[in-house]
Amino acid sequence: MRAPGFTGGLLDRADYLRHDDIGLAAAQGDWRGRLLKLENFEPELAADGLLSWTSMADAPESAELVLLGLDTANGNRPHFAAYIPGMRAPPGRSMRLFGLLDQFAPGEAATYAAARSVLDWHSRHQFCANCGAQTRMFRAGWGRKCDSCHAEHFPRVDPVVIMIAEHEGRALLGRGPGWPVGRYSALAGFLEPGESMEEAVAREIFEEAGVRVSGVRYIASQPWPFPSSLMMACVAVAEDDALTIDTNELEDAIWVSRADVQSVLSGEPGPFLAPPPYAIAFNLLTAWANAA
Amino acid sequence: MRAPGFTGGLLDRADYLRHDDIGLAAAQGDWRGRLLKLENFEPELAADGLLSWTSMADAPESAELVLLGLDTANGNRPHFAAYIPGMRAPPGRSMRLFGLLDQFAPGEAATYAAARSVLDWHSRHQFCANCGAQTRMFRAGWGRKCDSCHAEHFPRVDPVVIMIAEHEGRALLGRGPGWPVGRYSALAGFLEPGESMEEAVAREIFEEAGVRVSGVRYIASQPWPFPSSLMMACVAVAEDDALTIDTNELEDAIWVSRADVQSVLSGEPGPFLAPPPYAIAFNLLTAWANAA
Repeated sequence: MRAPGFTGGLLDRADYLRHDDIGLAAAQGDWRGRLLKLENFEPELAADGLLSWTSMADAPESAELVLLGLDTANGNRPHFAAYIPGMRAPPGRSMRLFGLLDQFAPGEAATYAAARSVLDWHSRHQFCANCGAQTRMFRAGWGRKCDSCHAEHFPRVDPVVIMIAEHEGRALLGRGPGWPVGRYSALAGFLEPGESMEEAVAREIFEEAGVRVSGVRYIASQPWPFPSSLMMACVAVAEDDALTIDTNELEDAIWVSRADVQSVLSGEPGPFLAPPPYAIAFNLLTAWANAA
Repeated sequence: MRAPGFTGGLLDRADYLRHDDIGLAAAQGDWRGRLLKLENFEPELAADGLLSWTSMADAPESAELVLLGLDTANGNRPHFAAYIPGMRAPPGRSMRLFGLLDQFAPGEAATYAAARSVLDWHSRHQFCANCGAQTRMFRAGWGRKCDSCHAEHFPRVDPVVIMIAEHEGRALLGRGPGWPVGRYSALAGFLEPGESMEEAVAREIFEEAGVRVSGVRYIASQPWPFPSSLMMACVAVAEDDALTIDTNELEDAIWVSRADVQSVLSGEPGPFLAPPPYAIAFNLLTAWANAA
């Protein structure tokens, strides 16, 4: 299987430096250090799809540094992203960013995903959810600490199930309100406290499409940095193909054949537009279409 | 496979009522409604392992109600848990709760897990992480809203990878500092922003034990309500069996044979104490021991 989008990062996260103030200070003071170039949370890509970096001296005075990791292939050169107080990710993705997402060189999208999710989390978590006081960055940017009530907070990762129900050789796809014309994809939803991945898959398919499933099979996962999901892709077996669509969630849902999915994924016209290759729906549909 | 602990809940979460103020008010006013009995976040179990419930009239004046779901097998009778301002889960689990965990009737532990995770989340998230103002419960208890900056907050679920590295028929187990004498289990750690499940598995095994792995296979998942993890159990193939233990994370790590794991799981003495049956490590070890 093609590696899912936003995976394959090449930096070593060097977790140990998050607990080592002296080592971290040395990394921050390393003249070889690299700072991720971001403008409004968007990266700058070179023609070869590599992320652009600058010198640590370019960080504004107010910047707080997040250690993205060490480049172990190049003498452990430290790589950082700058949180700048007041920075705020725009809602949704810009057309420019959309256009970049399939141009990353291998591994670069993963580095960007980590940086974007963590910076965005800092921007929306300046205060302590436990007591309301202001918090401060700690653990090299991988946490925030409240000096008032001593609570420690860590970046959120929200697990999301994304799945196909299958029934007699056909797969269930849906489209959300406002999606591009012709686009259909796997159903998806947030996993909730007190349920397993398999239970979330069954609940979401029933809620959105009225279809009962069993036999959930896990296929693959990816991080999705808008803002911080873990996408877990699954296939489940439907009891029957009658649909009861929740129109708050879905505008439409259709059953598509393996042949249709295969032709759409290979770029031929078909009953729907394929998901982009950086979305795990692409891997999920590919895995399903290629299964016996 | 035996169903993982804390799964199999029998209530319908009735997501639609979270968006329907009138329907929710009707459910709250339903004289047949049931309120989960909790004392210091701990349930009361009847002799048959069923959760104890009481009448809605027993909720204290200050209670805010979380809709756990509807009992569709009994006329959609609504079931609630009460968040009482100021309630606070004790750190860790009491000996009493420990003793209850393997006594739940099927599905009851899942209902308790959902209730505990959500109530605990409310207790530690009374303030808006975005602006510091007090927030209020909404969505039938499955969210909090800030009337100051209008941010909406939803209960956290923290994905955790828990995994065995395997090498030539042996499995890698570790023990944390302070664990009961003889207890070894699968390694585990929080998944971070910007990584897939498979990448988190490889990173954690390398960080904790110095072992490089590939070929990660997903086995099963469970919710773990202390306070709100999603445990995702995997097996990975180790490149070799040399260990470099991170003594901050692990007190010891050992390689155990399939025969050893089989005998320990069947209650025979062996080189380690088996994990409790409600922990997904039990399912993971069972799946690995029974694989060809």
